[in-house]
Parts: sequence; structure tokens; C-alpha cells
Amino acid sequence: MHPSEQDTNMPLTGIRVLDLTRIISGPYCTSILADMGAEVIKIETPGEGDPVRRQGVIRDGLSWYFANYNRNKKSVTLDLYSQEGKDILRSLIPRCDVIIENYRPGIMEKMGLGSDALKVLRPDIIHCSINGFGTSGPYRDRPSFDFIAQAMSGFMSLNGAESDPPMRAAPPISDLIAGMNGALGVMAALLRRDRTGRGDTISVSLLSSMIGLLSFHAANYFANGQLPARTGNDHGIVAPYGLFETADGQVAIAPSNDAMYEKLLDALELQELRTHPDFQANADRMLNRTSIKAIVEARTREQPTHYWIERLNRYGVPCGPVMNLREVFADPQVADQEMAIDVPHPDGQQVRMLGFPVKFTEAPCRAYRASPELGADTDDVLTELGLSREYIAQLRQAGKI
Amino acid sequence: MHPSEQDTNMPLTGIRVLDLTRIISGPYCTSILADMGAEVIKIETPGEGDPVRRQGVIRDGLSWYFANYNRNKKSVTLDLYSQEGKDILRSLIPRCDVIIENYRPGIMEKMGLGSDALKVLRPDIIHCSINGFGTSGPYRDRPSFDFIAQAMSGFMSLNGAESDPPMRAAPPISDLIAGMNGALGVMAALLRRDRTGRGDTISVSLLSSMIGLLSFHAANYFANGQLPARTGNDHGIVAPYGLFETADGQVAIAPSNDAMYEKLLDALELQELRTHPDFQANADRMLNRTSIKAIVEARTREQPTHYWIERLNRYGVPCGPVMNLREVFADPQVADQEMAIDVPHPDGQQVRMLGFPVKFTEAPCRAYRASPELGADTDDVLTELGLSREYIAQLRQAGKI
Repeated sequence: MHPSEQDTNMPLTGIRVLDLTRIISGPYCTSILADMGAEVIKIETPGEGDPVRRQGVIRDGLSWYFANYNRNKKSVTLDLYSQEGKDILRSLIPRCDVIIENYRPGIMEKMGLGSDALKVLRPDIIHCSINGFGTSGPYRDRPSFDFIAQAMSGFMSLNGAESDPPMRAAPPISDLIAGMNGALGVMAALLRRDRTGRGDTISVSLLSSMIGLLSFHAANYFANGQLPARTGNDHGIVAPYGLFETADGQVAIAPSNDAMYEKLLDALELQELRTHPDFQANADRMLNRTSIKAIVEARTREQPTHYWIERLNRYGVPCGPVMNLREVFADPQVADQEMAIDVPHPDGQQVRMLGFPVKFTEAPCRAYRASPELGADTDDVLTELGLSREYIAQLRQAGKI
Repeated sequence: MHPSEQDTNMPLTGIRVLDLTRIISGPYCTSILADMGAEVIKIETPGEGDPVRRQGVIRDGLSWYFANYNRNKKSVTLDLYSQEGKDILRSLIPRCDVIIENYRPGIMEKMGLGSDALKVLRPDIIHCSINGFGTSGPYRDRPSFDFIAQAMSGFMSLNGAESDPPMRAAPPISDLIAGMNGALGVMAALLRRDRTGRGDTISVSLLSSMIGLLSFHAANYFANGQLPARTGNDHGIVAPYGLFETADGQVAIAPSNDAMYEKLLDALELQELRTHPDFQANADRMLNRTSIKAIVEARTREQPTHYWIERLNRYGVPCGPVMNLREVFADPQVADQEMAIDVPHPDGQQVRMLGFPVKFTEAPCRAYRASPELGADTDDVLTELGLSREYIAQLRQAGKI
């Protein structure tokens, strides 16, 4: 393949990923790898491409959602229903370290690319399937979607106020967590390949990824069999905690232990509560959570949010404002951490997108390539495979690339 | 060090991690690595240990929450305020590939273990800091906590019904996502070390990890500057979608595109809606979302949830019940995917905990070791360092290990 724009110093330089994914779980997985320097070749349907190209807000013909999750990738169009498309895909596999797909389980086998067939083409291949429910089990063939995984994993049952119905998280977090799990699996398998020379077949599902987030709720349920109650923005076992009204808004306060609670009392000048029998230990405060909340809030209402943010932080109490996206991306800490970046696109647009949450010092993640036009790299990649210009033109004429 | 219980076939066999973390973000990071076969040496304060040992539901003296997130690890007690503790820590570093800590930024420097000092001890060390806000910027010294990262990242602002206040997710997801980002960074750096022989210094923060989940909400905001509305369990740009009442409960339905919508109409025997001018395109249905929801719900109320789950899946419409934890862990798919596992502890307890969301075929994750008693591996590790039995006894007497 052509030399890539990424320099040779990135964490995953030299790793080539064949990306058969679309929408969000798979593309997020491969964007993590691409951001760290892997060469990702995204295979798309001729004339259509990833449906996300047409989703979200479109500016000057570009979906900024697509641009975010497909930066640093190459795009090759292939009609995988045609024999020519299948042949080209098969000839790409020996040149790739990793294949990632988010087809329903069984589709790779139908395409003649089951685990054994892949190993014939490339013995040390690392194949990662990102799917709804797993590659086995009674629901393996069901269609899935983020909202369904949030509902079926128990995650929704924990969120929201006690008097309200279960509440999903608005971002498609089961897709995102599954994508992260896919990237974890692929990198772990690459490390094992470095050591043993062997590849592996990996499966991550939206459902299991969400179950993996159940944390102390699951641990406590396993230990005592009791279903956790929904507690809205309050903590299940710590009080005071949550959102408190201020003179001009709200402040989130999270004193996670007794020492923090005492700092909170100092900051609020409520030291007299220390000896109050209703609020001695956290267990007392949980019993009297409504009254301790009212006392704290009576005090926080006296000053604006920024006053409390400054004062509580000075006393060492974890606190912060509830920020909307405008406030987040105007925040000096978010700017310092470069969590919004501007990526130049060939048409002259500077496309703003999310930055990199993993900060390496020597070998940082970078946006070294704008998201590709549909099929932008088809000719390059096919020429590298040894296909003639005439044959490539013929395939294009026939709509197969 | 002693030969480990993990076999030599696991993805991260041979990687040794010095684990200076506590509570949840760091321990989750190191548990991901341990579950994949890394040898994780958890350093704990003598007599106290990780506070999570005393959190959550305790059964027969054991926190099942601690047991979940510290399986597969070793525990060594060291008083890092004592000179002896510091010396032992320094002598451990050259024997470890990775150091992971979740101190506040600057503490490692105060301990004489800043980036340069670490490199003197082990030139190719990979050092990962998991922190609240980043290792630079105006908030770097602020205390943090999951709830604060959920509030300040914009994540909360997206969740909940339009008429309700912003809503957090109940699991500590900023800790969990930061832990996953830490593991991604460490593995990427290990792959680069395999190639270049060089280590790296990595930072992941709770705040940036949550911002990394903002997905299409961020992309759309960047593109048009409009703040997204909270839409509860409804989709922001797709209708019908969400929770629908049935004869005996609710069903989550997520027809994500027009083809799925038509399948939904077929399954509900509402084909006549296809030609209804109010519901032609998704844009029409969004304008009339209340009426389309009412029509669908009138139909779903006629039958119980299990009827709709079976029927909608048969028609290819993503759907599912909202499950509580009891239902989740009684579900046959969750059982098939082994998302609850029982780990034998030395005292005879079988401790149930979450399974592994990443499924490798050749080299699977395993629970090869129960979570350690506080300091269970101190003698072994210190003996390997060449300390005499007498000196170890003396350190223990003095409360320094």
C-alpha cells in the first residue's frame, strides 16, 4: 500500500486494519485504532457507502458525524455481492493484520470468510466481530440497536428518578463501549501475536458491553439478591450528594467519604452539624437525606454557582456545574485538553470534532487525514494489489467498485 | 517473581503491571489487563488497603465489589510515606513493564517518581496516570469524582426527559470509561514498545473520557451550534422509537431506518399507515411523533411483552424488554455469554461477579485467582526482590508493609 500520512512514531504504526464496519460501533472501534496510527481501510458499498455519510447535520455536503468517526481512514468501494468484489476482498486479507466487522453473526461464514477460511488466507489474522448479542446463544440472530442493549442489559433499570420510568443515556453508549471493547481485544491479540505469532478470533457484543458497566450495582445484587432502587441524581449509599440549587443555577457536589463531608461542612460554614445526632455517620445522613439536603441547599442558594465552585474546590470537595455542550466546549480545561479539534478537509472546511481522550506523550494520537470521500482510495489500493488501470476502469463502469 | 497461575497462552502473559491505584477507575483499568493475563501487583497501604475493601455489600468479611474489580491481582502492602516503602517501590519499578496510578497530578513527582525519574529506573517504562481533569490545565489540581465528570462533560445535560433536570447514569461510568481508556493507552504503548523499544507516559482523565462519549450530539452541535434537547427515552431524530406499553409491561422498540419502520408496520398489522400523509417519511413522523406513538402503543397494549418480543424479532425489528438485574442474570443469552461467573475464594465462598465482555477464542480471559487478602503477596514479592526473611519481619513489625 502507499506510504501513509501518519508518521512512523505513532503507537500502532504499521498495523493494517481491514474495516468492514458501518454505522457506529464498528467505526468507533476502528477510529480508535486509526487515531493511534493504524492504517484503516474502510470497505464501503459502491454509490452508497456507510449510511452515516447521510446522517446527522450535513454541512456543504459533509456529515460532521461521519467526519468525526471516520477521520484517519481510507475508503475503498467494493460490491461484496459480486464475484469480483469478493475476489478483491480475499486478496486484501493476506495484506491485513486485523479484520473488524459488525455484520450479524453468520454473515462472514456465508461470505466464505469464516474463521478457518480467514486463517487459510492469513494464518495469524486477528478477526474481531462486533455484534448485538454474541456469536452464540438464543438471541444471536436478533437485530440489535443501542437502545435495545441499554434496555436489556439492566443499565436503564438503574437510571432515572425513583418515581420515573427507567431512563436510557442519550449518547449511543452501548455502541461506543462495544467499540472500545473491540479495540481492547484487538490490541491484546496483537500483543499476543507479537509474542506467539498466532492470531485470534474475538467477539464483543453490545449487550455484554453494557452488562460490563453494571459495576457495584451488579456486585451488590450478586451479594444480597436485592434489586437496586433508582435514585435519580442522588447517590445510592452516600448523603449529602447530588445537585443543589444555587442563587443562579445548580452545583453538583459529591463528597464521597466522611473526610470530604467534613470539608463540605467547613466550606458551607455548617460546622455545627458535626455534632448533630441526625448527621453523625453516613448511615445517619442516609436516613435523614431529605433534611441534610435541605440544610445544604438552604446555604448553597445564598450564592451563585461560580462562587460555590471556587469555594468548594478550595476546600477540597469534588464539585462542578452541570454544563451544556456550549459551556463544555468553551471551558478552559476542555480547551487545554484539546477535546475539540479542527480538521482541515480538502474542500476547505475546517471540521470541528472530538479530540483524543488518551494522551500519549512521546507518540500522541493525531488527526493526520480527513475522513475520506466515498471510494477515495479505491484506485490506490487496487493498484497496489496489482490490478491494471484497464481492469479497475472496467470494474468502475460495472458499478462493482 | 513467582510463576503465575495464569497459563502462558493469555493475551497479556508476561506483562507485569505495578498498580498504584485505588477505588474504581484505576482498579478497573488494571483488572482489564489482569483478566487478559497480565501480572498485576497492587500496592496497598498497610492495615487499610483499598477503601473498596470496605464498600458495597460485605459477605463473610468480603466486599463482593472489591472481589469483582480485584480478581486476578496480587496484593503487596507498602507504606509509601516511609523510606523503606519508597525504596522497595523503587526496586520494584525496574521489574515492571507498566505503572498505573490514579493519584492527583503532581503526586508522583512529589514521591520522586516523575517521568524522568521513572525512566532512570526503567528506560522503557510505560506510565499511565488516570486522573480527574488531565495533567495540565486550570482544573488539574481539583478533586474529582464520577458524578462531577458526568456533570461537567455535558453528558448529564443530554439525559432525561425534556421537562426534567439533567440526569446522570447511575453506574460510575466516567471511572469505567477512564479505566478502559487507560487500558487502551497502555496496550497501544506496549505494541509500540515491541516495535521501537521505547516506553511512554500516558494520561487519561474522567472528564475527557466522558467528553469522548458525546458522539453525534457533539458532532451536530459543532456543525450547527444548536444545543441538543433532552428527549428522554425517545430518539432525537427517529420516530417512532422508545418504550411502548404492552398488556403487562413495556417493550423497547428501535426501528432505526425506513426499512425497519415498514417491518414494524407489518409486525403490528398497521400497513395502512404506509400511505398516511402524516407518517410518510421519518421527518413527517418526527413532526407527528405523539400521534404515531399513540397509534403504535394502542396496538402494543393489546398483547403482553413476550408476545411482542417474539413477533417483532421475527419481523426483524430491534426490540427488547427493559430488564432489571434479576431478569438480566436469569436470561439465557446472558448465561450463554457467561456474563456472570462464580469465582472460588480461599474461604470457600463462591463469589459471583461480572464476566468478560471481550471474548477471545484461542486465548480467552479467565478468572485464575480470587481477589487477594490485603498484603497476601507481600512476602513472595519482597523475597523475590532479595529481601531477607528477617528484614521482612522487621518491616512488618514496624507497620511498614
